Amino acid sequence: MSHDPSESWAKKGPLAIIAGGGDYPPALARIAEGRGLSLFVAALEGAADPSAFGQADVTSYRLGQLGRLLEDFRRRDVADLVLIGSLPRPSFAGLRPEISTLKYLPHFARAFQGGDDHLLRGVVQFFEERGFRVHGPAEIAPELTAPAGALGRRGATPTQRELIARGFSLLSALSPFDVGQAAILADHRVIAIEAAEGTDAMIRRVGELVAGGRLKLGKGDGVLVKAPKEGQDLRVDMPAIGPETLRNIAQAGLAGVALRAGRVLIGDRGRLGTLADQLGLFVEGVA
Amino acid sequence: MSHDPSESWAKKGPLAIIAGGGDYPPALARIAEGRGLSLFVAALEGAADPSAFGQADVTSYRLGQLGRLLEDFRRRDVADLVLIGSLPRPSFAGLRPEISTLKYLPHFARAFQGGDDHLLRGVVQFFEERGFRVHGPAEIAPELTAPAGALGRRGATPTQRELIARGFSLLSALSPFDVGQAAILADHRVIAIEAAEGTDAMIRRVGELVAGGRLKLGKGDGVLVKAPKEGQDLRVDMPAIGPETLRNIAQAGLAGVALRAGRVLIGDRGRLGTLADQLGLFVEGVA
Repeated sequence: MSHDPSESWAKKGPLAIIAGGGDYPPALARIAEGRGLSLFVAALEGAADPSAFGQADVTSYRLGQLGRLLEDFRRRDVADLVLIGSLPRPSFAGLRPEISTLKYLPHFARAFQGGDDHLLRGVVQFFEERGFRVHGPAEIAPELTAPAGALGRRGATPTQRELIARGFSLLSALSPFDVGQAAILADHRVIAIEAAEGTDAMIRRVGELVAGGRLKLGKGDGVLVKAPKEGQDLRVDMPAIGPETLRNIAQAGLAGVALRAGRVLIGDRGRLGTLADQLGLFVEGVA
Repeated sequence: MSHDPSESWAKKGPLAIIAGGGDYPPALARIAEGRGLSLFVAALEGAADPSAFGQADVTSYRLGQLGRLLEDFRRRDVADLVLIGSLPRPSFAGLRPEISTLKYLPHFARAFQGGDDHLLRGVVQFFEERGFRVHGPAEIAPELTAPAGALGRRGATPTQRELIARGFSLLSALSPFDVGQAAILADHRVIAIEAAEGTDAMIRRVGELVAGGRLKLGKGDGVLVKAPKEGQDLRVDMPAIGPETLRNIAQAGLAGVALRAGRVLIGDRGRLGTLADQLGLFVEGVA
Protein backbone atom coordinates (compact mmCIF):
# COMPACT_ATOMS: atom_id res chain seq x y z
CA MET A 1 0.00 0.00 0.00
CA SER A 2 2.70 2.44 0.96
CA HIS A 3 5.24 1.10 -1.50
CA ASP A 4 5.64 2.34 -5.07
CA PRO A 5 3.32 0.22 -7.22
CA SER A 6 5.62 0.52 -10.22
CA GLU A 7 8.12 -1.73 -8.41
CA SER A 8 5.70 -4.59 -8.03
CA TRP A 9 3.88 -4.01 -11.26
CA ALA A 10 4.18 -6.58 -14.02
CA LYS A 11 2.54 -4.20 -16.55
CA LYS A 12 2.14 -6.50 -19.50
CA GLY A 13 -1.52 -6.13 -20.39
CA PRO A 14 -4.20 -3.95 -18.86
CA LEU A 15 -4.84 -3.72 -15.13
CA ALA A 16 -7.80 -5.99 -14.34
CA ILE A 17 -10.37 -4.63 -11.90
CA ILE A 18 -12.47 -7.43 -10.42
CA ALA A 19 -15.41 -5.28 -9.45
CA GLY A 20 -18.10 -5.89 -6.82
CA GLY A 21 -20.88 -3.50 -5.84
CA GLY A 22 -20.91 0.09 -4.64
CA ASP A 23 -19.22 3.31 -5.71
CA TYR A 24 -15.63 2.24 -5.19
CA PRO A 25 -15.08 0.17 -8.36
CA PRO A 26 -16.14 2.93 -10.81
CA ALA A 27 -14.23 5.51 -8.74
CA LEU A 28 -11.10 3.38 -8.88
CA ALA A 29 -11.55 2.89 -12.63
CA ARG A 30 -11.84 6.65 -13.23
CA ILE A 31 -8.71 7.39 -11.20
CA ALA A 32 -6.72 4.61 -12.87
CA GLU A 33 -7.77 5.83 -16.33
CA GLY A 34 -6.86 9.36 -15.31
CA ARG A 35 -3.35 8.03 -14.62
CA GLY A 36 -3.18 6.59 -18.12
CA LEU A 37 -3.60 2.93 -17.11
CA SER A 38 -5.42 0.72 -19.56
CA LEU A 39 -8.13 -1.35 -17.85
CA PHE A 40 -10.08 -4.55 -18.14
CA VAL A 41 -13.06 -4.60 -15.79
CA ALA A 42 -14.45 -7.97 -14.69
CA ALA A 43 -17.85 -6.96 -13.30
CA LEU A 44 -19.29 -9.54 -10.90
CA GLU A 45 -22.91 -10.23 -11.80
CA GLY A 46 -25.44 -9.29 -9.14
CA ALA A 47 -22.96 -6.90 -7.51
CA ALA A 48 -21.29 -4.56 -10.06
CA ASP A 49 -23.15 -2.41 -12.60
CA PRO A 50 -21.25 -2.97 -15.88
CA SER A 51 -22.54 0.33 -17.30
CA ALA A 52 -20.87 2.35 -14.52
CA PHE A 53 -17.39 2.11 -16.04
CA GLY A 54 -17.69 4.60 -18.92
CA GLN A 55 -15.55 3.68 -21.92
CA ALA A 56 -13.57 0.93 -20.18
CA ASP A 57 -13.44 -2.63 -21.52
CA VAL A 58 -16.00 -4.43 -19.30
CA THR A 59 -17.17 -8.05 -19.17
CA SER A 60 -19.60 -9.52 -16.63
CA TYR A 61 -18.96 -12.83 -14.89
CA ARG A 62 -20.83 -14.99 -12.47
CA LEU A 63 -18.69 -16.32 -9.61
CA GLY A 64 -19.04 -19.75 -11.21
CA GLN A 65 -17.36 -18.43 -14.39
CA LEU A 66 -13.91 -18.18 -12.88
CA GLY A 67 -12.48 -20.44 -15.59
CA ARG A 68 -13.70 -18.12 -18.34
CA LEU A 69 -12.45 -15.08 -16.40
CA LEU A 70 -8.96 -16.60 -16.19
CA GLU A 71 -9.01 -17.38 -19.91
CA ASP A 72 -10.03 -13.79 -20.70
CA PHE A 73 -7.28 -12.44 -18.43
CA ARG A 74 -4.70 -14.61 -20.22
CA ARG A 75 -5.94 -13.63 -23.68
CA ARG A 76 -5.48 -9.96 -22.72
CA ASP A 77 -2.07 -10.51 -21.10
CA VAL A 78 -3.42 -9.39 -17.73
CA ALA A 79 -0.70 -9.66 -15.10
CA ASP A 80 -1.93 -7.21 -12.46
CA LEU A 81 -5.29 -7.14 -10.81
CA VAL A 82 -7.19 -5.42 -8.05
CA LEU A 83 -10.31 -6.66 -6.26
CA ILE A 84 -12.68 -3.93 -5.09
CA GLY A 85 -16.30 -3.45 -4.09
CA SER A 86 -18.82 -5.22 -1.94
CA LEU A 87 -19.90 -8.76 -2.53
CA PRO A 88 -22.80 -10.47 -0.77
CA ARG A 89 -21.14 -13.47 0.90
CA PRO A 90 -21.59 -16.18 -1.72
CA SER A 91 -22.72 -19.67 -0.82
CA PHE A 92 -20.62 -22.49 -2.16
CA ALA A 93 -23.82 -24.20 -3.35
CA GLY A 94 -24.86 -21.09 -5.31
CA LEU A 95 -21.68 -20.91 -7.42
CA ARG A 96 -23.23 -22.75 -10.42
CA PRO A 97 -19.78 -23.43 -11.85
CA GLU A 98 -19.16 -23.74 -15.57
CA ILE A 99 -17.15 -26.74 -16.72
CA SER A 100 -14.01 -24.61 -17.09
CA THR A 101 -14.35 -23.67 -13.42
CA LEU A 102 -14.93 -27.13 -11.96
CA LYS A 103 -11.24 -27.86 -11.53
CA TYR A 104 -10.87 -24.87 -9.21
CA LEU A 105 -13.65 -25.97 -6.89
CA PRO A 106 -11.49 -27.88 -4.38
CA HIS A 107 -9.49 -24.70 -3.76
CA PHE A 108 -12.64 -22.72 -3.05
CA ALA A 109 -14.29 -25.49 -1.07
CA ARG A 110 -11.37 -25.15 1.35
CA ALA A 111 -11.55 -21.36 1.36
CA PHE A 112 -15.29 -21.41 2.06
CA GLN A 113 -14.78 -23.44 5.23
CA GLY A 114 -13.21 -20.58 7.19
CA GLY A 115 -14.46 -17.10 8.04
CA ASP A 116 -14.54 -14.12 5.68
CA ASP A 117 -10.84 -13.36 6.18
CA HIS A 118 -10.04 -16.92 5.30
CA LEU A 119 -12.11 -16.70 2.11
CA LEU A 120 -10.36 -13.49 1.04
CA ARG A 121 -6.94 -14.97 1.72
CA GLY A 122 -7.99 -17.94 -0.38
CA VAL A 123 -8.95 -15.68 -3.28
CA VAL A 124 -5.65 -13.76 -3.15
CA GLN A 125 -3.68 -16.99 -2.94
CA PHE A 126 -5.62 -18.42 -5.89
CA PHE A 127 -4.60 -15.57 -8.17
CA GLU A 128 -1.04 -15.36 -6.88
CA GLU A 129 -0.48 -19.08 -7.43
CA ARG A 130 -1.46 -18.49 -11.06
CA GLY A 131 1.15 -15.79 -11.49
CA PHE A 132 -1.00 -12.69 -11.10
CA ARG A 133 0.01 -9.78 -8.90
CA VAL A 134 -2.79 -8.70 -6.58
CA HIS A 135 -2.72 -4.98 -5.79
CA GLY A 136 -4.65 -2.99 -3.21
CA PRO A 137 -7.01 -0.20 -4.31
CA ALA A 138 -4.93 2.21 -2.21
CA GLU A 139 -1.80 1.44 -4.25
CA ILE A 140 -3.55 2.50 -7.42
CA ALA A 141 -5.69 5.28 -5.96
CA PRO A 142 -4.49 6.46 -2.53
CA GLU A 143 -6.95 9.35 -2.87
CA LEU A 144 -9.76 6.86 -2.14
CA THR A 145 -8.48 6.54 1.45
CA ALA A 146 -8.82 8.91 4.40
CA PRO A 147 -6.16 11.63 4.28
CA ALA A 148 -4.46 12.85 7.48
CA GLY A 149 -6.32 15.76 9.04
CA ALA A 150 -9.88 17.04 8.86
CA LEU A 151 -11.92 16.15 5.78
CA GLY A 152 -14.53 18.89 6.11
CA ARG A 153 -14.56 22.21 7.93
CA ARG A 154 -14.70 20.72 11.42
CA GLY A 155 -11.70 19.19 13.20
CA ALA A 156 -11.72 17.21 16.41
CA THR A 157 -11.42 19.20 19.65
CA PRO A 158 -8.72 18.36 22.23
CA THR A 159 -11.34 16.52 24.31
CA GLN A 160 -12.45 14.53 21.28
CA ARG A 161 -8.79 13.80 20.45
CA GLU A 162 -8.35 12.21 23.88
CA LEU A 163 -11.28 9.89 23.24
CA ILE A 164 -9.91 9.14 19.75
CA ALA A 165 -6.45 8.26 21.10
CA ARG A 166 -8.02 5.95 23.68
CA GLY A 167 -10.18 4.40 20.96
CA PHE A 168 -7.22 3.62 18.69
CA SER A 169 -5.34 2.11 21.65
CA LEU A 170 -8.37 -0.06 22.33
CA LEU A 171 -8.50 -1.24 18.71
CA SER A 172 -4.77 -2.07 18.85
CA ALA A 173 -5.29 -4.08 22.04
CA LEU A 174 -8.06 -6.04 20.30
CA SER A 175 -6.05 -6.73 17.17
CA PRO A 176 -4.33 -9.92 18.43
CA PHE A 177 -7.83 -11.37 18.84
CA ASP A 178 -8.67 -10.67 15.17
CA VAL A 179 -11.61 -8.44 16.12
CA GLY A 180 -12.38 -4.77 16.55
CA GLN A 181 -12.32 -2.68 13.39
CA ALA A 182 -14.34 0.02 15.13
CA ALA A 183 -15.49 1.31 18.50
CA ILE A 184 -17.55 4.17 19.88
CA LEU A 185 -16.45 6.24 22.86
CA ALA A 186 -18.51 8.83 24.70
CA ASP A 187 -19.16 10.10 28.23
CA HIS A 188 -15.46 9.42 29.06
CA ARG A 189 -15.79 5.69 28.37
CA VAL A 190 -16.04 2.96 25.77
CA ILE A 191 -19.68 2.61 24.74
CA ALA A 192 -19.58 -0.01 21.99
CA ILE A 193 -17.09 -2.35 20.34
CA GLU A 194 -17.68 -3.83 16.90
CA ALA A 195 -17.38 -7.56 16.39
CA ALA A 196 -19.46 -9.70 14.00
CA GLU A 197 -22.43 -7.30 13.82
CA GLY A 198 -20.63 -4.71 11.66
CA THR A 199 -20.10 -0.98 12.03
CA ASP A 200 -23.57 0.23 11.10
CA ALA A 201 -25.31 -2.16 13.53
CA MET A 202 -22.97 -0.94 16.28
CA ILE A 203 -23.82 2.69 15.52
CA ARG A 204 -27.56 1.91 15.62
CA ARG A 205 -27.11 0.22 19.00
CA VAL A 206 -25.56 3.37 20.43
CA GLY A 207 -28.39 5.42 18.92
CA GLU A 208 -30.83 3.19 20.81
CA LEU A 209 -28.94 3.60 24.10
CA VAL A 210 -29.21 7.37 23.62
CA ALA A 211 -32.89 7.23 22.62
CA GLY A 212 -33.64 4.98 25.62
CA GLY A 213 -31.99 7.41 28.04
CA ARG A 214 -29.26 4.94 29.00
CA LEU A 215 -26.56 7.13 27.49
CA LYS A 216 -26.51 10.91 27.68
CA LEU A 217 -24.42 12.70 25.08
CA GLY A 218 -23.32 16.23 25.81
CA LYS A 219 -22.60 18.64 22.96
CA GLY A 220 -19.59 17.43 20.98
CA ASP A 221 -19.55 14.08 22.76
CA GLY A 222 -19.34 10.72 21.00
CA VAL A 223 -16.76 9.55 18.47
CA LEU A 224 -16.45 6.55 16.22
CA VAL A 225 -12.92 5.26 15.64
CA LYS A 226 -12.17 2.92 12.75
CA ALA A 227 -8.94 1.24 11.70
CA PRO A 228 -7.83 -2.00 10.09
CA LYS A 229 -6.83 -4.85 12.36
CA GLU A 230 -3.09 -5.50 12.43
CA GLY A 231 -2.27 -8.15 9.86
CA GLN A 232 -5.44 -7.45 7.90
CA ASP A 233 -4.69 -7.79 4.15
CA LEU A 234 -5.36 -4.25 2.99
CA ARG A 235 -5.17 -5.38 -0.64
CA VAL A 236 -8.52 -7.14 -0.42
CA ASP A 237 -9.96 -6.26 2.98
CA MET A 238 -9.49 -2.58 3.71
CA PRO A 239 -12.12 -1.15 6.06
CA ALA A 240 -14.40 1.41 4.45
CA ILE A 241 -16.90 4.05 5.43
CA GLY A 242 -19.27 5.93 3.18
CA PRO A 243 -22.15 8.41 3.20
CA GLU A 244 -24.53 5.89 4.81
CA THR A 245 -22.21 5.45 7.80
CA LEU A 246 -21.92 9.21 8.24
CA ARG A 247 -25.70 9.54 8.20
CA ASN A 248 -26.00 6.79 10.81
CA ILE A 249 -23.46 8.55 13.00
CA ALA A 250 -25.38 11.82 12.82
CA GLN A 251 -28.64 9.98 13.49
CA ALA A 252 -27.17 8.37 16.63
CA GLY A 253 -26.18 11.81 17.92
CA LEU A 254 -22.42 11.29 17.77
CA ALA A 255 -20.01 14.15 17.06
CA GLY A 256 -17.71 12.60 14.48
CA VAL A 257 -15.38 9.94 13.15
CA ALA A 258 -11.67 9.30 13.31
CA LEU A 259 -10.05 7.03 10.73
CA ARG A 260 -6.54 5.66 10.37
CA ALA A 261 -5.17 7.83 7.55
CA GLY A 262 -4.35 5.91 4.38
CA ARG A 263 -5.80 2.72 5.81
CA VAL A 264 -9.56 3.21 5.54
CA LEU A 265 -11.40 3.60 2.22
CA ILE A 266 -13.66 6.63 2.07
CA GLY A 267 -14.30 7.02 -1.68
CA ASP A 268 -14.70 10.58 -2.90
CA ARG A 269 -13.03 12.80 -0.31
CA GLY A 270 -14.72 16.00 -1.42
CA ARG A 271 -18.18 14.48 -1.38
CA LEU A 272 -17.70 12.93 2.07
CA GLY A 273 -16.28 16.19 3.46
CA THR A 274 -19.27 18.14 2.14
CA LEU A 275 -21.65 15.62 3.68
CA ALA A 276 -19.78 15.82 7.01
CA ASP A 277 -20.23 19.60 6.97
CA GLN A 278 -23.93 19.27 6.15
CA LEU A 279 -24.43 16.79 8.98
CA GLY A 280 -22.38 18.85 11.46
CA LEU A 281 -19.83 16.06 11.95
CA PHE A 282 -16.07 16.00 11.99
CA VAL A 283 -14.26 13.35 9.94
CA GLU A 284 -10.59 13.21 10.76
CA GLY A 285 -7.75 11.07 9.45
CA VAL A 286 -5.19 10.21 12.12
CA ALA A 287 -1.69 9.14 11.07
CA MET B 1 -13.04 -11.17 48.90
CA SER B 2 -10.38 -13.82 49.27
CA HIS B 3 -9.21 -12.68 52.69
CA ASP B 4 -10.68 -13.94 55.95
CA PRO B 5 -13.59 -11.64 56.78
CA SER B 6 -13.05 -12.11 60.51
CA GLU B 7 -9.83 -10.09 60.22
CA SER B 8 -11.52 -7.05 58.80
CA TRP B 9 -14.70 -7.45 60.75
CA ALA B 10 -15.54 -4.89 63.40
CA LYS B 11 -18.39 -7.06 64.75
CA LYS B 12 -19.93 -4.70 67.25
CA GLY B 13 -23.61 -4.78 66.33
CA PRO B 14 -25.42 -6.71 63.64
CA LEU B 15 -24.23 -6.93 60.04
CA ALA B 16 -26.25 -4.42 58.02
CA ILE B 17 -27.47 -5.58 54.61
CA ILE B 18 -28.36 -2.63 52.40
CA ALA B 19 -30.67 -4.51 50.07
CA GLY B 20 -31.71 -3.70 46.51
CA GLY B 21 -33.90 -5.85 44.26
CA GLY B 22 -33.64 -9.43 43.06
CA ASP B 23 -32.93 -12.76 44.70
CA TYR B 24 -29.44 -12.04 45.98
CA PRO B 25 -30.29 -9.97 49.09
CA PRO B 26 -32.64 -12.60 50.66
CA ALA B 27 -30.20 -15.37 49.67
CA LEU B 28 -27.33 -13.53 51.34
CA ALA B 29 -29.46 -12.94 54.45
CA ARG B 30 -30.32 -16.67 54.72
CA ILE B 31 -26.67 -17.70 54.40
CA ALA B 32 -25.49 -15.07 56.89
CA GLU B 33 -28.14 -16.15 59.40
CA GLY B 34 -27.15 -19.79 58.85
CA ARG B 35 -23.65 -18.75 59.94
CA GLY B 36 -25.04 -17.30 63.15
CA LEU B 37 -24.62 -13.64 62.17
CA SER B 38 -27.20 -11.24 63.52
CA LEU B 39 -28.60 -8.95 60.82
CA PHE B 40 -30.17 -5.60 60.24
CA VAL B 41 -31.67 -5.33 56.76
CA ALA B 42 -32.07 -1.87 55.23
CA ALA B 43 -34.47 -2.59 52.37
CA LEU B 44 -34.39 0.08 49.67
CA GLU B 45 -37.94 1.09 48.76
CA GLY B 46 -38.97 0.36 45.20
CA ALA B 47 -36.22 -2.27 44.85
CA ALA B 48 -36.16 -4.72 47.79
CA ASP B 49 -39.17 -6.66 49.09
CA PRO B 50 -39.02 -6.23 52.90
CA SER B 51 -41.11 -9.39 53.43
CA ALA B 52 -38.48 -11.58 51.72
CA PHE B 53 -36.12 -11.63 54.72
CA GLY B 54 -37.94 -14.05 57.04
CA GLN B 55 -37.43 -13.29 60.71
CA ALA B 56 -34.62 -10.75 60.19
CA ASP B 57 -34.86 -7.19 61.55
CA VAL B 58 -35.92 -5.20 58.45
CA THR B 59 -36.60 -1.51 57.91
CA SER B 60 -37.39 0.13 54.58
CA TYR B 61 -35.73 3.36 53.45
CA ARG B 62 -36.03 5.64 50.51
CA LEU B 63 -32.69 6.77 49.07
CA GLY B 64 -33.51 10.20 50.42
CA GLN B 65 -33.64 8.80 53.97
CA LEU B 66 -29.93 8.23 54.28
CA GLY B 67 -29.75 10.38 57.41
CA ARG B 68 -32.31 8.20 59.16
CA LEU B 69 -30.54 5.05 57.96
CA LEU B 70 -27.26 6.26 59.47
CA GLU B 71 -29.01 7.07 62.76
CA ASP B 72 -30.57 3.60 62.83
CA PHE B 73 -27.19 2.00 62.09
CA ARG B 74 -25.61 3.93 64.97
CA ARG B 75 -28.43 3.12 67.37
CA ARG B 76 -27.87 -0.58 66.63
CA ASP B 77 -24.05 -0.35 66.85
CA VAL B 78 -23.73 -1.40 63.19
CA ALA B 79 -20.07 -1.37 62.16
CA ASP B 80 -20.11 -3.75 59.17
CA LEU B 81 -22.29 -3.53 56.13
CA VAL B 82 -22.78 -5.11 52.74
CA LEU B 83 -24.56 -3.64 49.72
CA ILE B 84 -26.31 -6.15 47.50
CA GLY B 85 -29.04 -6.32 44.87
CA SER B 86 -30.07 -4.36 41.84
CA LEU B 87 -31.03 -0.72 41.97
CA PRO B 88 -32.58 1.19 39.10
CA ARG B 89 -30.09 4.00 38.53
CA PRO B 90 -31.51 6.78 40.71
CA SER B 91 -31.77 10.34 39.53
CA PHE B 92 -30.36 12.99 41.79
CA ALA B 93 -33.58 14.96 41.38
CA GLY B 94 -35.67 11.99 42.51
CA LEU B 95 -33.91 11.58 45.87
CA ARG B 96 -36.53 13.58 47.84
CA PRO B 97 -34.15 13.97 50.76
CA GLU B 98 -35.33 14.25 54.35
CA ILE B 99 -33.88 17.08 56.40
CA SER B 100 -31.46 14.68 58.16
CA THR B 101 -30.10 13.74 54.72
CA LEU B 102 -29.62 17.23 53.28
CA LYS B 103 -26.11 17.63 54.67
CA TYR B 104 -24.95 14.59 52.67
CA LEU B 105 -26.20 15.92 49.36
CA PRO B 106 -22.96 17.61 48.22
CA HIS B 107 -21.18 14.23 48.51
CA PHE B 108 -23.77 12.52 46.32
CA ALA B 109 -24.05 15.40 43.89
CA ARG B 110 -20.37 14.79 43.12
CA ALA B 111 -20.84 11.02 42.91
CA PHE B 112 -23.78 11.37 40.52
CA GLN B 113 -21.67 13.33 38.04
CA GLY B 114 -19.60 10.32 36.94
CA GLY B 115 -20.57 6.96 35.48
CA ASP B 116 -21.98 4.03 37.44
CA ASP B 117 -18.57 2.95 38.72
CA HIS B 118 -17.99 6.45 39.99
CA LEU B 119 -21.33 6.43 41.81
CA LEU B 120 -20.58 3.09 43.47
CA ARG B 121 -17.13 4.27 44.54
CA GLY B 122 -18.81 7.36 46.00
CA VAL B 123 -21.21 5.21 48.04
CA VAL B 124 -18.42 3.01 49.42
CA GLN B 125 -16.33 6.04 50.27
CA PHE B 126 -19.30 7.68 52.00
CA PHE B 127 -19.73 4.76 54.41
CA GLU B 128 -16.01 4.24 54.95
CA GLU B 129 -15.48 7.90 55.82
CA ARG B 130 -18.10 7.44 58.51
CA GLY B 131 -16.24 4.52 60.07
CA PHE B 132 -18.19 1.61 58.59
CA ARG B 133 -16.51 -1.41 57.04
CA VAL B 134 -17.97 -2.25 53.63
CA HIS B 135 -17.84 -5.98 52.86
CA GLY B 136 -18.46 -7.80 49.61
CA PRO B 137 -21.27 -10.36 49.38
CA ALA B 138 -18.66 -12.98 48.44
CA GLU B 139 -16.83 -12.45 51.75
CA ILE B 140 -19.96 -13.33 53.68
CA ALA B 141 -21.38 -15.93 51.30
CA PRO B 142 -18.79 -17.25 48.83
CA GLU B 143 -21.35 -19.91 47.86
CA LEU B 144 -23.25 -17.19 45.97
CA THR B 145 -20.40 -17.04 43.44
CA ALA B 146 -19.45 -19.41 40.61
CA PRO B 147 -17.44 -22.38 41.94
CA ALA B 148 -14.52 -23.77 39.94
CA GLY B 149 -15.64 -26.54 37.60
CA ALA B 150 -18.95 -27.50 36.03
CA LEU B 151 -22.11 -26.37 37.76
CA GLY B 152 -24.47 -28.90 36.14
CA ARG B 153 -23.90 -32.24 34.47
CA ARG B 154 -22.22 -30.81 31.38
CA GLY B 155 -18.63 -29.58 31.31
CA ALA B 156 -16.92 -27.65 28.52
CA THR B 157 -15.25 -29.72 25.79
CA PRO B 158 -11.59 -29.17 24.87
CA THR B 159 -12.71 -27.15 21.82
CA GLN B 160 -14.97 -25.03 23.98
CA ARG B 161 -12.13 -24.60 26.51
CA GLU B 162 -9.94 -23.11 23.76
CA LEU B 163 -12.62 -20.53 22.95
CA ILE B 164 -13.04 -19.84 26.68
CA ALA B 165 -9.30 -19.28 27.20
CA ARG B 166 -9.24 -16.90 24.23
CA GLY B 167 -12.29 -15.12 25.62
CA PHE B 168 -10.75 -14.55 29.05
CA SER B 169 -7.54 -13.26 27.41
CA LEU B 170 -9.68 -10.85 25.41
CA LEU B 171 -11.43 -9.59 28.54
CA SER B 172 -8.04 -9.08 30.24
CA ALA B 173 -6.78 -7.11 27.24
CA LEU B 174 -9.87 -4.89 27.46
CA SER B 175 -9.57 -4.29 31.20
CA PRO B 176 -7.19 -1.30 30.99
CA PHE B 177 -9.91 0.43 28.98
CA ASP B 178 -12.47 -0.11 31.77
CA VAL B 179 -14.76 -2.09 29.48
CA GLY B 180 -15.54 -5.69 28.65
CA GLN B 181 -17.21 -7.72 31.37
CA ALA B 182 -18.34 -10.27 28.82
CA ALA B 183 -17.84 -11.53 25.28
CA ILE B 184 -19.22 -14.23 23.01
CA LEU B 185 -16.98 -16.46 20.88
CA ALA B 186 -18.13 -18.89 18.22
CA ASP B 187 -17.09 -20.17 14.78
CA HIS B 188 -13.41 -19.83 15.86
CA ARG B 189 -13.72 -16.08 16.38
CA VAL B 190 -14.95 -13.29 18.60
CA ILE B 191 -18.59 -12.61 17.77
CA ALA B 192 -19.60 -9.95 20.29
CA ILE B 193 -18.02 -7.79 22.98
CA GLU B 194 -20.07 -6.19 25.74
CA ALA B 195 -19.74 -2.49 26.40
CA ALA B 196 -22.51 -0.13 27.54
CA GLU B 197 -25.38 -2.26 26.23
CA GLY B 198 -25.10 -4.95 28.93
CA THR B 199 -24.78 -8.73 28.77
CA ASP B 200 -28.37 -9.61 27.88
CA ALA B 201 -28.50 -7.14 24.96
CA MET B 202 -25.23 -8.60 23.66
CA ILE B 203 -26.66 -12.13 23.83
CA ARG B 204 -29.79 -11.03 21.96
CA ARG B 205 -27.62 -9.45 19.27
CA VAL B 206 -25.85 -12.75 18.68
CA GLY B 207 -29.22 -14.52 18.57
CA GLU B 208 -30.25 -12.11 15.81
CA LEU B 209 -27.05 -12.77 13.83
CA VAL B 210 -27.84 -16.49 14.02
CA ALA B 211 -31.52 -16.01 13.13
CA GLY B 212 -30.54 -13.79 10.19
CA GLY B 213 -28.13 -16.39 8.82
CA ARG B 214 -25.08 -14.18 9.36
CA LEU B 215 -23.64 -16.59 11.93
CA LYS B 216 -23.85 -20.34 11.69
CA LEU B 217 -23.43 -22.26 14.94
CA GLY B 218 -22.42 -25.89 14.76
CA LYS B 219 -23.37 -28.28 17.53
CA GLY B 220 -21.59 -27.31 20.74
CA ASP B 221 -20.42 -23.99 19.29
CA GLY B 222 -20.80 -20.63 21.01
CA VAL B 223 -19.66 -19.64 24.49
CA LEU B 224 -20.23 -16.61 26.68
CA VAL B 225 -17.32 -15.62 28.92
CA LYS B 226 -17.86 -13.30 31.86
CA ALA B 227 -15.41 -11.89 34.39
CA PRO B 228 -14.96 -8.72 36.40
CA LYS B 229 -12.74 -6.02 35.00
CA GLU B 230 -9.39 -5.70 36.75
CA GLY B 231 -9.69 -3.08 39.46
CA GLN B 232 -13.47 -3.46 39.63
CA ASP B 233 -14.59 -3.12 43.28
CA LEU B 234 -16.03 -6.57 43.90
CA ARG B 235 -17.50 -5.40 47.19
CA VAL B 236 -20.18 -3.37 45.45
CA ASP B 237 -19.88 -4.18 41.77
CA MET B 238 -19.42 -7.91 41.23
CA PRO B 239 -20.70 -9.13 37.85
CA ALA B 240 -23.70 -11.45 38.11
CA ILE B 241 -25.62 -13.88 35.98
CA GLY B 242 -28.92 -15.52 36.76
CA PRO B 243 -31.63 -17.75 35.28
CA GLU B 244 -32.71 -15.05 32.80
CA THR B 245 -29.22 -14.87 31.31
CA LEU B 246 -29.06 -18.66 30.96
CA ARG B 247 -32.43 -18.66 29.18
CA ASN B 248 -31.19 -15.93 26.81
CA ILE B 249 -28.06 -17.95 26.07
CA ALA B 250 -30.09 -21.03 25.22
CA GLN B 251 -32.47 -18.93 23.12
CA ALA B 252 -29.52 -17.52 21.12
CA GLY B 253 -28.34 -21.06 20.37
CA LEU B 254 -25.08 -20.87 22.33
CA ALA B 255 -23.58 -23.91 24.04
CA GLY B 256 -22.69 -22.51 27.44
CA VAL B 257 -21.07 -20.03 29.80
CA ALA B 258 -17.69 -19.72 31.46
CA LEU B 259 -17.34 -17.55 34.56
CA ARG B 260 -14.34 -16.48 36.61
CA ALA B 261 -14.68 -18.70 39.68
CA GLY B 262 -15.32 -16.80 42.91
CA ARG B 263 -15.63 -13.52 41.02
CA VAL B 264 -19.09 -13.68 39.44
CA LEU B 265 -22.33 -13.86 41.45
CA ILE B 266 -24.64 -16.68 40.41
CA GLY B 267 -27.01 -16.95 43.40
CA ASP B 268 -28.26 -20.44 44.19
CA ARG B 269 -25.73 -22.84 42.65
CA GLY B 270 -28.02 -25.87 42.72
CA ARG B 271 -30.88 -24.05 41.06
CA LEU B 272 -28.67 -22.62 38.31
CA GLY B 273 -27.05 -26.02 37.70
CA THR B 274 -30.45 -27.67 37.34
CA LEU B 275 -31.58 -24.99 34.93
CA ALA B 276 -28.36 -25.40 32.90
CA ASP B 277 -29.10 -29.14 32.62
CA GLN B 278 -32.69 -28.46 31.56
CA LEU B 279 -31.54 -25.99 28.91
CA GLY B 280 -28.74 -28.27 27.68
CA LEU B 281 -26.04 -25.72 28.54
CA PHE B 282 -22.74 -25.99 30.34
CA VAL B 283 -21.93 -23.48 33.07
CA GLU B 284 -18.33 -23.66 34.12
CA GLY B 285 -16.31 -21.74 36.68
CA VAL B 286 -12.71 -21.16 35.61
CA ALA B 287 -10.08 -20.38 38.26
